[in-house]
Amino acid sequence: MEKNVLVLGGGMIGSAVAQDFRERGGAKVTVADIRQESLARISARTGAAVLRADVSDLAVLEEAVRPFDLVVGALPSALGFRTLRALIEAGKDCVDLSFMPEDAFDLDALAQERGVTAVVDCGVAPGVSNMMVGYAASRLDVREDVLIYVGGLPVQRRWPFDYKAPFAPHDVIEEYTRPARFVEHGRIVVKEALSEPELVDFAGVGTLEAFNTDGLRSLLRTVDATRMKEKTLRYPGHVELMRAFRETGFFSKAAVDVGGQAVRPLDLTAAILFPKWSFEDGEADLTVLRVVVEGRRGASRERHSWDLLDYFDPESGLRSMSRVTAFPAAIVTRFLAEGRFCKPGVHAPEALGAMPGLLDLVLNELRARGIEVGGSVVMPEPAEDASSRRSPSRA
Amino acid sequence: MEKNVLVLGGGMIGSAVAQDFRERGGAKVTVADIRQESLARISARTGAAVLRADVSDLAVLEEAVRPFDLVVGALPSALGFRTLRALIEAGKDCVDLSFMPEDAFDLDALAQERGVTAVVDCGVAPGVSNMMVGYAASRLDVREDVLIYVGGLPVQRRWPFDYKAPFAPHDVIEEYTRPARFVEHGRIVVKEALSEPELVDFAGVGTLEAFNTDGLRSLLRTVDATRMKEKTLRYPGHVELMRAFRETGFFSKAAVDVGGQAVRPLDLTAAILFPKWSFEDGEADLTVLRVVVEGRRGASRERHSWDLLDYFDPESGLRSMSRVTAFPAAIVTRFLAEGRFCKPGVHAPEALGAMPGLLDLVLNELRARGIEVGGSVVMPEPAEDASSRRSPSRA
Repeated sequence: MEKNVLVLGGGMIGSAVAQDFRERGGAKVTVADIRQESLARISARTGAAVLRADVSDLAVLEEAVRPFDLVVGALPSALGFRTLRALIEAGKDCVDLSFMPEDAFDLDALAQERGVTAVVDCGVAPGVSNMMVGYAASRLDVREDVLIYVGGLPVQRRWPFDYKAPFAPHDVIEEYTRPARFVEHGRIVVKEALSEPELVDFAGVGTLEAFNTDGLRSLLRTVDATRMKEKTLRYPGHVELMRAFRETGFFSKAAVDVGGQAVRPLDLTAAILFPKWSFEDGEADLTVLRVVVEGRRGASRERHSWDLLDYFDPESGLRSMSRVTAFPAAIVTRFLAEGRFCKPGVHAPEALGAMPGLLDLVLNELRARGIEVGGSVVMPEPAEDASSRRSPSRA
Repeated sequence: MEKNVLVLGGGMIGSAVAQDFRERGGAKVTVADIRQESLARISARTGAAVLRADVSDLAVLEEAVRPFDLVVGALPSALGFRTLRALIEAGKDCVDLSFMPEDAFDLDALAQERGVTAVVDCGVAPGVSNMMVGYAASRLDVREDVLIYVGGLPVQRRWPFDYKAPFAPHDVIEEYTRPARFVEHGRIVVKEALSEPELVDFAGVGTLEAFNTDGLRSLLRTVDATRMKEKTLRYPGHVELMRAFRETGFFSKAAVDVGGQAVRPLDLTAAILFPKWSFEDGEADLTVLRVVVEGRRGASRERHSWDLLDYFDPESGLRSMSRVTAFPAAIVTRFLAEGRFCKPGVHAPEALGAMPGLLDLVLNELRARGIEVGGSVVMPEPAEDASSRRSPSRA
């Protein structure tokens, strides 16, 4: 029998989840939101059942989820942690897309105790990227390099930003200021956001610029690697402008006296960037993701790599960032509904990637939705050979 | 007998005027200011007499100037016009460095009536640049091209601005936003500030970037030329960042709602730029000026050009911007004191440049103060010859 799925939040992501179930079936979906106009739009566009409710009220939430088998969380990140805890306490399996700042693993013991399977961070990166890393990490005996590049961009570049934001400028600027955690020599190191810019070519997109941001999240804990980093991609030049903005003080949270008023520069900056960074109706965006994992398997080296590329879909009206975030969550929700993944506890997507065959299933489902994903495994020559070639006289 | 000169304003410029008279004589100088600490510093450094008075009060001003033969105005630009009018009404010859936004020529009739000789805009540009243009314009029958490049810069470039401001950021940003008036085809045209950037080489400084600003002032009225423009110089890259700031809205005077407070972005920007654009104690600046005037004299073409270059003087502690602004005014004040220039009315410096021998005198005085000024006159081949060379078959 078809399962009943409740999607919490009828924003861009929640409505894209509903749209995926409408087009491809697999569960009966209801979308809960406080905003009547969002619900009306979702109802008209996806045929999903809707439920007007303020699910930020935990008593309302508990009542709302009762009739459902599964829950997809697509609420703002500030609500993510307490919502997840409430879902686990209510005994509901769930897939979370809130990208909460807190550590969801703090709820792992509770989820095991309640017999709840919860998958968090189930978008594109974090999300698909974690599955790719989880897959490769499970294949390798020694994980030497884990590298993730990801970016969401407008298709058309416009001066001076060459960028528009699929979410509020505050959240983007947070990425541009929060210190970035990476792994070097097997240990976590912290680097300045926006540092170490480098140019990288992507087939179909051209040259982009990658720079440090804090995006590894659960991978810092779940994957044991010598080196690991995630970098954000933008069109070349954007990062230099953002560095100049930050250096000037436009991203500062420390209030400045302006004619007797205390003003946080960040708040003004976010306010004036909002209209400039908003996509216009029907404006096309794209998402690009590259994951490279290299290490040793027995005596040989292996390098696993994937490139993902996706565009705005004019037919559905869904922006690429909504597609690549919502579709993995919808696919994983079906796995939970079908019992393919049932393991009480809180899991990040790398746990699914490590399960035999599961990554291929996910990637094929993404391809069926028009997302381009290519992957390859190569076996570079062992380092020993390379070094001996450099000293032929030793032969 | 030595004349008595009153300098209004004991800021950077006023104190540099006093310092010049201390070192080179020519008049007995008194500096008037409301700020006791400025007067104490001037007294200690220049030996000038000081007068504590609020000369923004016109009754106080009238009383203060009574015993003096000549007045140098070095007050903020907002006070410039009404101060000049009061000086003229009091019958005092004067040299003004307030760079007022109003049109000083509106006081010309009054000055003629009162028999007062007033010279305004008597710094480097406007100032020396006007004298150069006035000289060349008086030599030529037809003035075709008048071009002025000017910039005040820190000697050391530091990311991201490659710039520090010798005056408040508000005034610099005003230059970056006010539409720029030029002459093309003999008519005044208006262009966007910061537009038409071009790279220009200066011996001793390297490559700078010149862009449109509104700096021609009196020349728009006094010189009849086919083409005339003034451009501001910065290290390359600065203008692109300023264009991005302006495009983002950081220079806007329209209030933005920031969490319920109405904030003018320009005010916040000026507040956070102020410490970043301030010169440190003893930090070296430089001033660079290029003036090129080309036209016809009888049947032949002439191109007059000058390059001026000046640096911070560690001995006197005077920044170059103070030197190149104050010294021309001090030199012209001596001309007035000596009766070399006595012509009731309000004059811009191009009127002095047009007087035989006067420009050379000024430039030699500047050279004596360590300011490098080079000039040349060349006679390019007439345009007719060039065009006939391009079509040799016509010969």
